[in-house]
Amino acid sequence: MQNAANSDAARYAGRGVSASKGEVHAAVDKLDRGLFPGAFCKITEDFLTGDAALCNLIHGDGAGTKSLLAYLWWREHEAADPRSIRVFRGIAQDSIVMNVDDLLCAGVTGGVLLSSTINRNARRIPGAVLAELIEGTEEFLETLRTHGFGIRSGGGETADVGDLTATLTVDSTATAVLRRDAVVDAARIRPGLAIVGLASGGAPCIYEKNEKNTAGGAVENSGIGSNGLTSARHELLSKHYAEFFPETFDHTTDPALVYCGPHRLDDALDGSALSVGAALLSPTRTYAPFVIALLKELGVAPNAGATGGVFGLVHCSGGAQTKCLRFGGGDGAGVHFVKDNLFPVPPVFRAIQKASGTGAWEMHKVYNMGHRLEVFVEERDADRVIAIAGDLGIEARVVGRTEPTRLPDGKNHATVTPAAGGAALEYRL
Amino acid sequence: MQNAANSDAARYAGRGVSASKGEVHAAVDKLDRGLFPGAFCKITEDFLTGDAALCNLIHGDGAGTKSLLAYLWWREHEAADPRSIRVFRGIAQDSIVMNVDDLLCAGVTGGVLLSSTINRNARRIPGAVLAELIEGTEEFLETLRTHGFGIRSGGGETADVGDLTATLTVDSTATAVLRRDAVVDAARIRPGLAIVGLASGGAPCIYEKNEKNTAGGAVENSGIGSNGLTSARHELLSKHYAEFFPETFDHTTDPALVYCGPHRLDDALDGSALSVGAALLSPTRTYAPFVIALLKELGVAPNAGATGGVFGLVHCSGGAQTKCLRFGGGDGAGVHFVKDNLFPVPPVFRAIQKASGTGAWEMHKVYNMGHRLEVFVEERDADRVIAIAGDLGIEARVVGRTEPTRLPDGKNHATVTPAAGGAALEYRL
Repeated sequence: MQNAANSDAARYAGRGVSASKGEVHAAVDKLDRGLFPGAFCKITEDFLTGDAALCNLIHGDGAGTKSLLAYLWWREHEAADPRSIRVFRGIAQDSIVMNVDDLLCAGVTGGVLLSSTINRNARRIPGAVLAELIEGTEEFLETLRTHGFGIRSGGGETADVGDLTATLTVDSTATAVLRRDAVVDAARIRPGLAIVGLASGGAPCIYEKNEKNTAGGAVENSGIGSNGLTSARHELLSKHYAEFFPETFDHTTDPALVYCGPHRLDDALDGSALSVGAALLSPTRTYAPFVIALLKELGVAPNAGATGGVFGLVHCSGGAQTKCLRFGGGDGAGVHFVKDNLFPVPPVFRAIQKASGTGAWEMHKVYNMGHRLEVFVEERDADRVIAIAGDLGIEARVVGRTEPTRLPDGKNHATVTPAAGGAALEYRL
Repeated sequence: MQNAANSDAARYAGRGVSASKGEVHAAVDKLDRGLFPGAFCKITEDFLTGDAALCNLIHGDGAGTKSLLAYLWWREHEAADPRSIRVFRGIAQDSIVMNVDDLLCAGVTGGVLLSSTINRNARRIPGAVLAELIEGTEEFLETLRTHGFGIRSGGGETADVGDLTATLTVDSTATAVLRRDAVVDAARIRPGLAIVGLASGGAPCIYEKNEKNTAGGAVENSGIGSNGLTSARHELLSKHYAEFFPETFDHTTDPALVYCGPHRLDDALDGSALSVGAALLSPTRTYAPFVIALLKELGVAPNAGATGGVFGLVHCSGGAQTKCLRFGGGDGAGVHFVKDNLFPVPPVFRAIQKASGTGAWEMHKVYNMGHRLEVFVEERDADRVIAIAGDLGIEARVVGRTEPTRLPDGKNHATVTPAAGGAALEYRL
């Protein structure tokens, strides 16, 4: 297994995780792709009320294995600090933001109805954890509403399924009804645009002042989001966790890939005020208040020939810096995404890369590496986008631009220059 | 552990399942209960489009541990019959019906948008299983539409989370927008009504002719539904499954409670044309076409003083024959649910009771025991309800009636006479 453990992709696959999701896409791609096949989310006609001017979105996602980090944090700290159970509030936020920020990229700026589904092992996850998840949900929805994003919980389901999970999964589903002319259709992404990236972390932005959500206090957001957490957990944390918390990993995984890192949760993270655990548990930043302000000021690029407005929004979730490849470039006008001005790599990603020895190519495909939202606008609008983000305390910069594809087949591709130096990375669709 | 294993409730709790969900209700009960606090589902104001005449429902539920039965069926039969993987189509149906039939009880008769969330261990659950789940979803939604229930999939999420599950969870979330005056408010349930029960199984009804969904062919529906399947699986199936499929149970469960039954999946089920496995895997019957016809013909009891119409609909899911206790009886007019004419006990429930030695009191609290839907109408309307069900090939009968509470505290209670004989069973809220 030594060879397998040395290959980046094999390490990822060795933990039963498929970064490219090719298998899933193959099963899904046969389905109807909806009204706006090139939009960031599937958009259907308005089945809910039957209005031809409207459309519907329903979106499911969750906190993934980040719930296991919260579990480890709580179990390791509960004796000394009973309030450590509040770490699960951040998991509720993670699950919600993974939905909300995808919906934002399709143009949804409110009117969202949310439901949560928790599958738990009742032996290890008591009612007190459920209470924190519920309280965390209500608290974060209130934060969103306070900052202009209308969203309400319409209920939820908790299932006791100890034969299916040793701990817990935390998923959410969000529904929205949108005017068709308000849709941000990422199919509009074309050559000749600026790519403005918004920082995934850093100093707390104006709606991240609430210290209650975080494991280590909201001195900063690590930028980790909710993707790549299976690898991050095993690469950073030590065998201690395999020994004391065997319920937190798949026992068919090669032991060489299980908790094979150097750290305990409370270890200091190089270059950060956060501990390793607090950095891994930073609640995913939402860009909701930003997108509301952005679309209010710039509007949506209304049709294929238009100038001005927002041409596309890409949430760098699964696929990270390669997520953009799936959008724009239709009608033969393939796009070359050139990103040559990325943010400095946040400490948590530097630590993962150092501990795992993962190459830059794989790192940028799994982790956002500094920005989790991309705004595609004409170059003249870039400064306004940066100013809108700045007003909310979010760092933004022009991370790159779109050019015509250089590939003979006319397909999208990307060239990403790592902020840490080294050769430019090439990605194909 | 012998004593614990001999107590019905302890056997249930011993497998990490809480039948009463008291802990979950305690966490949820602090939340806003919506526009119709006594309705079967939570109903909110219309956040989606802001129309004062409308309301919203969003509902999450899933197939629970029934997915493990499909997994066992597939793994045990795949070598001899590659088509056995189609058993997962029934799991897609189970997950959908657990949502749709709850929504029906609030008065939703169409206009539903659905999303699915699958958490899987990619090592054991390949893309071919995902394809069956997706195909099963599309197939069943088409069946519903053909029979008048408008429902569309708006997408879904599949997560590879091998550290969280050894197999797979299959959940769905459904959203609907409803006119407020179309809501069936189960708070209207009051003394003096007939309770019409609709069979949970039996000969296939007119929309169950499709043999593709079932494990053993649609010669009959066992009536099992999607509740109590953790107990049913362990009580009926033998140690063979613990030995060969250790990924299908919680290893912290007392071994005496794990796969402690007499059967293999292919064993004949006494009194049935189905095998034990096929009976446990019968896809949950939906009552959607029935409720559409019912509400069209009888209408909704429009207000507290009204006569005629449907006063309430109860889906006997979690809590089974005691589910009704949570509805009606407000304003001091507590309800005594008297059910003294239940359907004969279907073979699958007889087998579970025989194998486990579970008492009648617990059996009726966990399993539907013959009917999974209750319609509350005035006695004069009962025959019409039965005829509407009959037209669809569903057996129905007056299973009981509502009387004024006999409890000094004025709360709801129930007296259920087992069809198999024996003393009447008493339940309190």
